[in-house]
Amino acid sequence: MVQKRKFALLGTGFIGQVHAKNLAAHPDIELVMVADQDRSRADGIASRYGARVGSVTEAINSDAIDTILIATSTPSHAEFLAASAAAGKAVYCEKPIDLSLDKARRVVEDVARHPVPVTVGFNRRFDPSHNQLKQHLQQGLIGKAELIQMVCRASELPPLSYLQTSGGQMRDQAIHFFDLLRWLTEDEVETIGAMGSALAMPEIASFGDVDTSVLMMKMRSGALAQLDNTRRTGYGYDERITVLGSHGMSDSAAQSPQGATLYSTSGINRPPLYADWFNRVKETYYLHLDAFVRSLNGKAVSVPGLHDGLQAQAIAEAAVKSLETGTFCKVEQL
Amino acid sequence: MVQKRKFALLGTGFIGQVHAKNLAAHPDIELVMVADQDRSRADGIASRYGARVGSVTEAINSDAIDTILIATSTPSHAEFLAASAAAGKAVYCEKPIDLSLDKARRVVEDVARHPVPVTVGFNRRFDPSHNQLKQHLQQGLIGKAELIQMVCRASELPPLSYLQTSGGQMRDQAIHFFDLLRWLTEDEVETIGAMGSALAMPEIASFGDVDTSVLMMKMRSGALAQLDNTRRTGYGYDERITVLGSHGMSDSAAQSPQGATLYSTSGINRPPLYADWFNRVKETYYLHLDAFVRSLNGKAVSVPGLHDGLQAQAIAEAAVKSLETGTFCKVEQL
Amino acid sequence: MVQKRKFALLGTGFIGQVHAKNLAAHPDIELVMVADQDRSRADGIASRYGARVGSVTEAINSDAIDTILIATSTPSHAEFLAASAAAGKAVYCEKPIDLSLDKARRVVEDVARHPVPVTVGFNRRFDPSHNQLKQHLQQGLIGKAELIQMVCRASELPPLSYLQTSGGQMRDQAIHFFDLLRWLTEDEVETIGAMGSALAMPEIASFGDVDTSVLMMKMRSGALAQLDNTRRTGYGYDERITVLGSHGMSDSAAQSPQGATLYSTSGINRPPLYADWFNRVKETYYLHLDAFVRSLNGKAVSVPGLHDGLQAQAIAEAAVKSLETGTFCKVEQL
Amino acid sequence: MVQKRKFALLGTGFIGQVHAKNLAAHPDIELVMVADQDRSRADGIASRYGARVGSVTEAINSDAIDTILIATSTPSHAEFLAASAAAGKAVYCEKPIDLSLDKARRVVEDVARHPVPVTVGFNRRFDPSHNQLKQHLQQGLIGKAELIQMVCRASELPPLSYLQTSGGQMRDQAIHFFDLLRWLTEDEVETIGAMGSALAMPEIASFGDVDTSVLMMKMRSGALAQLDNTRRTGYGYDERITVLGSHGMSDSAAQSPQGATLYSTSGINRPPLYADWFNRVKETYYLHLDAFVRSLNGKAVSVPGLHDGLQAQAIAEAAVKSLETGTFCKVEQL
Repeated sequence: MVQKRKFALLGTGFIGQVHAKNLAAHPDIELVMVADQDRSRADGIASRYGARVGSVTEAINSDAIDTILIATSTPSHAEFLAASAAAGKAVYCEKPIDLSLDKARRVVEDVARHPVPVTVGFNRRFDPSHNQLKQHLQQGLIGKAELIQMVCRASELPPLSYLQTSGGQMRDQAIHFFDLLRWLTEDEVETIGAMGSALAMPEIASFGDVDTSVLMMKMRSGALAQLDNTRRTGYGYDERITVLGSHGMSDSAAQSPQGATLYSTSGINRPPLYADWFNRVKETYYLHLDAFVRSLNGKAVSVPGLHDGLQAQAIAEAAVKSLETGTFCKVEQL
Repeated sequence: MVQKRKFALLGTGFIGQVHAKNLAAHPDIELVMVADQDRSRADGIASRYGARVGSVTEAINSDAIDTILIATSTPSHAEFLAASAAAGKAVYCEKPIDLSLDKARRVVEDVARHPVPVTVGFNRRFDPSHNQLKQHLQQGLIGKAELIQMVCRASELPPLSYLQTSGGQMRDQAIHFFDLLRWLTEDEVETIGAMGSALAMPEIASFGDVDTSVLMMKMRSGALAQLDNTRRTGYGYDERITVLGSHGMSDSAAQSPQGATLYSTSGINRPPLYADWFNRVKETYYLHLDAFVRSLNGKAVSVPGLHDGLQAQAIAEAAVKSLETGTFCKVEQL
Repeated sequence: MVQKRKFALLGTGFIGQVHAKNLAAHPDIELVMVADQDRSRADGIASRYGARVGSVTEAINSDAIDTILIATSTPSHAEFLAASAAAGKAVYCEKPIDLSLDKARRVVEDVARHPVPVTVGFNRRFDPSHNQLKQHLQQGLIGKAELIQMVCRASELPPLSYLQTSGGQMRDQAIHFFDLLRWLTEDEVETIGAMGSALAMPEIASFGDVDTSVLMMKMRSGALAQLDNTRRTGYGYDERITVLGSHGMSDSAAQSPQGATLYSTSGINRPPLYADWFNRVKETYYLHLDAFVRSLNGKAVSVPGLHDGLQAQAIAEAAVKSLETGTFCKVEQL
Repeated sequence: MVQKRKFALLGTGFIGQVHAKNLAAHPDIELVMVADQDRSRADGIASRYGARVGSVTEAINSDAIDTILIATSTPSHAEFLAASAAAGKAVYCEKPIDLSLDKARRVVEDVARHPVPVTVGFNRRFDPSHNQLKQHLQQGLIGKAELIQMVCRASELPPLSYLQTSGGQMRDQAIHFFDLLRWLTEDEVETIGAMGSALAMPEIASFGDVDTSVLMMKMRSGALAQLDNTRRTGYGYDERITVLGSHGMSDSAAQSPQGATLYSTSGINRPPLYADWFNRVKETYYLHLDAFVRSLNGKAVSVPGLHDGLQAQAIAEAAVKSLETGTFCKVEQL
């Protein structure tokens, strides 16, 4: 029988609570400790899942804990990641490592001195449909990837306050797809072009953000990729990836929850798409966690690592620069 | 806060294990006791979910238990149901009440003397898509039901040994759809015609069974219904219901797990249907259990009761008679 | 270069005009003469397509004509068919041969004495999708046919006056599918059961007709078939055939004209089905005519013949008897 | 009754033959004369459709002709267009006006001195599905256009000899979608970025062409558009347009000819997409011709004009420049 991994969870906000539920449900995980600045929230989560409450420092240094899940707010990721690694803990770190690519690079260099396993929260790599698409590629069913089309369209505008500290659409929303693109194609983005507009919420233009954007990328292999992002569709959450290869295409399409189709004189009415991103992707959080635990237990399971976290951010930085300058930009290879 | 329902689970075979997992996961249920003739299997389930092992008699009579879930083999359902009711316990009883309609009627009369809540295991009533179809009907979106088409096609032949004691395709497989038909239309079947063949496994003809059958039914309202059943499709589990109403149609279609679609010169290859019935319907077990608990806690939630169990069996009996005699048969109204 | 077939068209009502257009458009056909009791209508059609007007007798006896297309009203089919055959003409005869099966049999015996090529108007055999389904069967892609499901649902109620002389839903609407079933499976119907209701237009019950019906049939091979018919759906014309075989299924589904899909908060709205049966099947008239001309020119092309016309009517008669008597009925093999 | 338009057809190559068939079939058109350098080909077409053969000069100057359809090879378009206009004829001119935008502008200025109706061959504007998408926009069903996604993927590589004189992927293939974008949105492209690779046929890089390309465009309104083009998919012809608006999305999807769907253990196999572009779009040639004739007959029907021809070419020129320079390029507004 497998030894259970002993986790501490740092952060119990929205995403922290998602992780808490998954940590408690996983048969090979024991959720030992929960930490949050909001003590009463930490108490609630801890008592629901039979864990105890501690401070971040306690969690990172406790001998009763071997793995840290960092789900605190973005500005604290880098510090907690470095401290956890220094304490010899394995780490699941929510993305991004830091909104500043420079700071992220420094912390990654720092962590490199401690040979601990780290995964960065690119959970969409574990989406079952996207995985089937990757298998189609790996099995040669569509030949070599030539043209990748990705769509990332959120259903509803987040609040202005969220957008103000999000780092902008490239670093906050598109970044998942920069990572998916690298993972799917096992190739690197060389050049990127981006155009954007603030159509849904014009006031975000005041701090240089956009809510609707299109991007194109050229890969080392010569393959070409497109991505479009919007912050609100009006028709649900629309995430799609299609890869055109030299011998065919694989399409991981937009998804609807199961439902009945209505036929009437006004047409054929299928159930709508998932109402929001979370309902669409929530199972990937569990699957990512499970893959990480299996890799910690010695299984040959691939999880996104620190370099993946940095490289996706490097693409986002080049996209921001392209948006700002109206030119194509080279992507730094880290 | 809601008082947890204290359950005993009788039977830990395939379906008993499904219930065990759901009982353990439900926030308002405590799984107190597990009983099975196979003691070591009961031990395994009990220890996994933190329950204790007892005999059926203990479970039915224990004060620490208020609800019994009967998932033993069919021949024992009637006896355990009667005993549980006599002991004042609420009961979730797997279908059928008994393969003999006469015996089932007697036990239902017996149970009627003890005013305990009972639900019979027609879990497919809780299928999200079928429910959306029922809502389309109830909201008047398709008018009055006129023609109901149901398809129940299993993916793979069960073993011969299973078929020999199953009661036959009408009582074992079709019965779920006799119940769904009554539930969807809130109408009763008056007359039934059935034709069948043993095409996939000709040897079952020796004990009067069929593996492929078509049925037609006339309802009290004049509405007409069709059902077809097969024991193996070769392409996965195919369950569908469509209701044609006076103003439109609602279609609860065959379902596939999420996956990528492959486009190649040989066509457009969508992911296959669910591999088997269990993967298609498993969430309905949880939803049925949840509805039952909510009804026990005083919520106005409808669950299939003993009369539903009997009436579906009466339709099955008429179907068997039609198969045997080659005539249309009246359905007894219980 | 092929010698053009010289056609006379008898009848210029709705379906006669459809044929006129196809006759004029076909490169290997010359439309020589048009006959109709309504002289001015015949004049209009003749002048539009460069033909001349004649009487039925003239058309049948003219040496300038080698093929007769009978598209007059049903009661005159048998007489014109017999006369055309006696005059040595090839004949395309709209279905049915005669509403009376006895009379139809007598005329077929009569025609048998004149070895002329005759096709009966079961144009749906030339539907491209149904043909692909038949190819799936013939190529062994789904194994042996076991369960055939057919749906024939008209979009709008025809006028009462039409229904009064139509011969009833079995002889008028279902008959096309009796023919398709024989053609697809290359098997014969042995027994049939039918149930029907007058739900959409209750007044047709006064002359023994129904507007909603379900049928089941057992084939010689043991295969089972279902058919449902309605006279109005409220959501367009819905024609479907699926064949479940021993190794898979082929589905010739309901069809919509091409159009854009609308995504909004209220769901995903696909274009509606074809508005009516004619728009769905109109190309099959041309394809049937073309197959007939190719067969006349010595190509090995199969077209529905007189025996097909009779046998489909024999199934319809058995269906009528089942509807009337509430029993399963044997189908006469002609 | 409407006076028939008297057409001369210049050019009887592949596309000229498509036009010949449509001209002959149209009830309000008389195909009077056919001209081609290849006299025997012109003879064949003329005799098939009952026209006579003449020289281009004869056609343009004949009093028996009021409309010229120019379907000759690209280098002669400009000269024949100018001559036809000078002779007072209405003109249907295949695109492009000329591969050189400068020469095209000069001929348009020239034609402007003769007030004759001219349409340029952007037949895809008459695609029924794209039209339904445009109606969704015009009826306000999806709000204001914000993000337009277009896919233009040919099924098979054209011969190298074709590509060498085609003007390149932007001017030859993408140009249809530059026109569709302007027509759908009633907006103008301001800036364009393009990336391309020669992946399917690397040798075309020697003359500066690409076979796979992605483009992004910013419209005056701030709306953003994407287009991808490939020269061969391996899975059929894939043309799609989706418009995301402020309140929903409309999707004119890839289309397959009608066919049966095959269900087997290996998945659900839908009929493949149209085998090539011509089968997908052929009806639009008739619909464009019909719209032009109706506009000539005084109906308020919009057809693509000379300015549309020039502006689409201007976008193509900017795309070529972006491909060559690796920068975003402004589009000249003509």
